[in-house]
Formats: sequence, C-alpha cells, structure tokens
Amino acid sequence: MRMKVISLAVALVATSSMSWAASVRDEPIQPIAPAQAADPAKVELGKKLFFDPRLSKSGFISCNSCHNLSMGGTDNLKTSIGDKWQQGPINAPTVLNSSLAVAQFWDGRAANLQEQAGGPIANPGEMGFTHGLAVDVLQSIPGYVAEFKTVYGSARIDIDKITDAIAAFEETLVTPNSPFDKWLVGDDKALTKDELAGYTLFKESGCVACHNGPAVGGTSFQKMGIVEPYKSASTAEGRAGVTGKDEDRFNFKVPTLRNVELTYPYFHDGEAATLEQAVEIMGRLQLGRKYSDQEVGQIVAFLKTLTGDQPRFMMPLLPASVNETPPPKPFD
Amino acid sequence: MRMKVISLAVALVATSSMSWAASVRDEPIQPIAPAQAADPAKVELGKKLFFDPRLSKSGFISCNSCHNLSMGGTDNLKTSIGDKWQQGPINAPTVLNSSLAVAQFWDGRAANLQEQAGGPIANPGEMGFTHGLAVDVLQSIPGYVAEFKTVYGSARIDIDKITDAIAAFEETLVTPNSPFDKWLVGDDKALTKDELAGYTLFKESGCVACHNGPAVGGTSFQKMGIVEPYKSASTAEGRAGVTGKDEDRFNFKVPTLRNVELTYPYFHDGEAATLEQAVEIMGRLQLGRKYSDQEVGQIVAFLKTLTGDQPRFMMPLLPASVNETPPPKPFD
Repeated sequence: MRMKVISLAVALVATSSMSWAASVRDEPIQPIAPAQAADPAKVELGKKLFFDPRLSKSGFISCNSCHNLSMGGTDNLKTSIGDKWQQGPINAPTVLNSSLAVAQFWDGRAANLQEQAGGPIANPGEMGFTHGLAVDVLQSIPGYVAEFKTVYGSARIDIDKITDAIAAFEETLVTPNSPFDKWLVGDDKALTKDELAGYTLFKESGCVACHNGPAVGGTSFQKMGIVEPYKSASTAEGRAGVTGKDEDRFNFKVPTLRNVELTYPYFHDGEAATLEQAVEIMGRLQLGRKYSDQEVGQIVAFLKTLTGDQPRFMMPLLPASVNETPPPKPFD
Repeated sequence: MRMKVISLAVALVATSSMSWAASVRDEPIQPIAPAQAADPAKVELGKKLFFDPRLSKSGFISCNSCHNLSMGGTDNLKTSIGDKWQQGPINAPTVLNSSLAVAQFWDGRAANLQEQAGGPIANPGEMGFTHGLAVDVLQSIPGYVAEFKTVYGSARIDIDKITDAIAAFEETLVTPNSPFDKWLVGDDKALTKDELAGYTLFKESGCVACHNGPAVGGTSFQKMGIVEPYKSASTAEGRAGVTGKDEDRFNFKVPTLRNVELTYPYFHDGEAATLEQAVEIMGRLQLGRKYSDQEVGQIVAFLKTLTGDQPRFMMPLLPASVNETPPPKPFD
C-alpha cells in the first residue's frame, strides 16, 4: 500500500524553467515555486521595515523579533513577548510561505499580508505603537523618505505604503526545494523509505484533508478538537472572534507544515513542545486515531522533509534617525 | 589656520595593499584597517551565536538586540531593555570597532571582547541566563555541536569557546573607508571645507586629547565632568566600581566616535539626544569652552565624516533546537 505512491511518479522533464509544473506528481500537496520579486526596490524597502524596531513604541521590537528569519520565521516561544514584556495570547505563526495562506493570523482576521502587517504595529500588546506615530518616525528619516519616493513616486509616507512594502518583502519569503518537493517533481531518491511511509500514512489517515496545497495547510479554518475536545489554558477562541458565530469557536486557520521542524513549539497555544507530541495529539483529537510510536516516527520523518531552502539575504542597514525623529519610549 | 591641515597632506601611493600605512597623514587619529578574519569558520559560528536569542533565559534577547548591526551596532535607546523589560543602568556602547578599545564596558571591567561577551549572558538584568544553562542549550543542538567540533576540534562546548567565537566575529566588525579615513590617506577632496574646519577645531580645542587613535576614543578612562560637574540621574559610577578607588568615580572609558552619527543617543546615560547637544556639553564640561553654534555645526560635520563602511553579511540561519533542547523561559 505504501509503495502505491511511488508508482504514481512522473518523470521530471526539465525542458523549461516552469516545466516541472507539468510533470509534478498528482498529490494533494504541491511544490513551492521560487519567489519572483516583481519590484526589487520595494522588496528591499520592505526588508528594512521588517527589521526596523522603530516601528514599535519602544524602539526595541521589529517584525523580525517574533518572526525571526534566522529561526524559521518564528520566535520559537509558546506565545510571544510584546511591548513591556507582555505575554502574547497566541503562538506567533511563521512568516515563511505566509503568502500562500487563505488569510492571515490564526483567526484569519486579516485578508492578506498587507492587512496583517498593520496589526502588530498598533496592537498595544505587541509593538504598542500607532500607525500615525510610526508614519511620523519614518517620515522624519531622510533615508526612508528617499526610498519611499523611489518606490512609490511620492515622498509622502503613509501606513498603506509601509504595509505594502512589508508585504512585498514577505511574499519573497518562500522556501522551495525541500526534499519533499524534490520528490514531488520526480526525484525518487529524495525521500527515504521511512519518510515516504510517513507521507503515505499522513495522506491515508486523513491529515491531508486539512494540510494540503503548496503550504501543506493555510487553506481553511478547522476546529481544534473535532473528535475529542482540546484542553488549553489559552483564551483564544479563534474564528468566532471574527465572525461572531458560536459555531466558529476554536476554529483556527490550519497552520502550514512547511518548515515545521523549525517552527516549534506547536499549536495556537504553543503547548506541544515536539513534533511527536503534535502528531500524537492531532491524530487523537482530529482523526480519532491512536498512532503507534513507529507511525508517529514515520510521520515526523515525513514532516522534516518539508524544510526547504530558507530565505538568504544580506542583513539590512537601516537609515539613521535624525535630530527631528521622535525618539522611542520604551519605559513610558 | 584651518588650512594648515591641508598643507600636511601626503600623496597616496597605492603600490601595495598596505602602502597607505606608510603614506597616512601624521594626525592623532589613524585610519581603520579592514578586517582580516583569520578563521572564517570561527567567525561564522560567532555570528550565529551573536544573533542567537537562545543564549538568553527568555529565548528573546540576543547580542544583536542591544548591539544591532542594522543600526550602528547599538539599540539607539538611552539605556537598554533587559530580561523581563528591565531598564538597563547604562547606554549600550556600539560593538563596531570595539576590538580597538583598551578594555570593554564603560567601566572597563572586561579586559577584552571575549571577557565582555560572557557578561550580558549571565547578567540578571540583561540576558538573565547562566553560562552553564547557555552551554546546556547549545550542547543539545546537533548543528552547533558540529560547528564547534569543526572550529575547536572538540564536540564539547564550554563558555570559553562560546565567547571566543563571539569575539572572533566581533573583531570583524570594523568600519573602514570613512570619508575622514580617505582624507587621512591623502584624498584632499574627501572632506568639505566645513568638515575640515570642524576637524581642526576638534583637534585644536583639545577633543583629541581623549578622542584619538584609530577608534577616535576607547584608549583611556576619563572623568565625565572635568571643568564642570555632569549632572545625571544615572547611578553609574564608572571606573570606581572596578578599582574601588574614590578618585575613579565618574571615570568612564572614552567612547569611540567612529560612526557616532549612527550611535545616538550619547553619553553613558544616553541623555544627549543629538550630536549638537553632545558637542556643546563636552566642550563646556570637559574643556571649559563654549562653542558657538557655527563651531558646533562644524564639529558635528566633522564627526559625521567618521561613518565608515558598515559590516555587510548574510543574515545567519541558526541551527534548530531539538526535542532535548531546554526550552526558553520568558515568563518564569
């Protein structure tokens, strides 16, 4: 049964750069396409903004603080640390491949990356700033003004331009060429026997019902605790907070499993410390299935094949503040 | 008078890569030599450690949090934010060119970069960890174990290796090729008339007595408030805390002025927001001199010529934790 997948293999015909799309195996998971930056200057500006702690009240927290691109686009904490060390209510999702998701945040309250990017800046528990004050800071900095002018044709900075540039950078944060993707496009040797067995089990026991598409998730909202309720100290209610509907309680966006080896700990409350725990709990709560230790091990082996090429780039140099720049207020 | 400096110009003879050393102008400030990494693998390991928040108890604070290499090697805050948002007692000095200093920290309590690197990790108000726990974390991570083995010939990690690698990375963080350095090696056009006037004033009014050498500072400890006492809410006592001698109260290491345009705010308490304020206060308190607005402007113009090439490198990817890695404890 497990070998059935291999029989579906389609030979890779590399006659053009996009030819793999035609030769990809017919699976519920699709390979990730490399990023194509339409506007490199905008991406570069967005990268600077992503790394700039001056978008926070304290001058200490940047997007990269909680979506650390040295660590799989996450902070690897159960829940994040916000302004004045406030404990966040939810686990920071990875920014990697986030452009592939149907919506942003665990509850999908932002339709897209641009809308998402404005959220943490103005959230009192995260970056603790306001959009107006963030604009004032950037508008005071000649280096930024020049870059915004180049990218947007106007020296007038506003929050829409800021979040548009951040989103353009984030769209480049995809992770192609994972072992699993290599297998998907025809390389039979890209997966070991155990990894392939894990994928077969992942598929045949129903995980792919939710974890599908190029991001292996991110395509739908699902209830956490279908067969068995999920017990959590977390107060997060998920999608219900957006729709106001009681039936959406504990409905969360299905997280991407891309690079899941790097994005520990797991679940919206970060309470699963290891992949083994996460697989065991998911099987039991969502599928009513008790995986054996061997099965858990095989699924985990498969999940680790979803680690792709991490975004590599030069650490940005940020334009310096000037005398007129409003100073950060970390302790007010 | 101001033009006297120009008459000292020596022609740049670029017959070999080090020939500038022989043709450098005879000034109290010397140009910065480019970094030469003796051991690239060690530097690469040190870079990862510098960026790794797992060296802190919280898993949130790395060396780069307060010595941000996107922002002149500082956090641009008056005093830094430590574990649980504790307010630090002193302004974070830039890590750039810190290898050129006579000792480390404002009070010189660390003899060198390696000794310095261990300080913040174990300081309860900074990274809040212990050396032992930091070693335990790294020792659990196969990616780090392999790198330590490559660099040190042993898979056994200890704090001395950790700080040695961080110091090796920090030694590469020099900023050559500033406009002033170009002038120093003979390029008369590298400075404007105002910048050169500022340097002449800087030199002739006595600033160079302390701000000299390649780092334009960092070579001695001096009392803050020689002619007139410095009034500060800061409880920092400077060198006296190290020597126990009353005459060392308020003696601080003279900070480097390299990249000073980027390392705002100024002084050990961070209370001078602008270079203009810093120059005015220094002139009055240290030299008993009241600079005119024009003089302040000229000195500031000179100081801005000390901004050199910032270190450029790829953002590091950190080896992932594994199941056995002790998790961070940000809220305990």
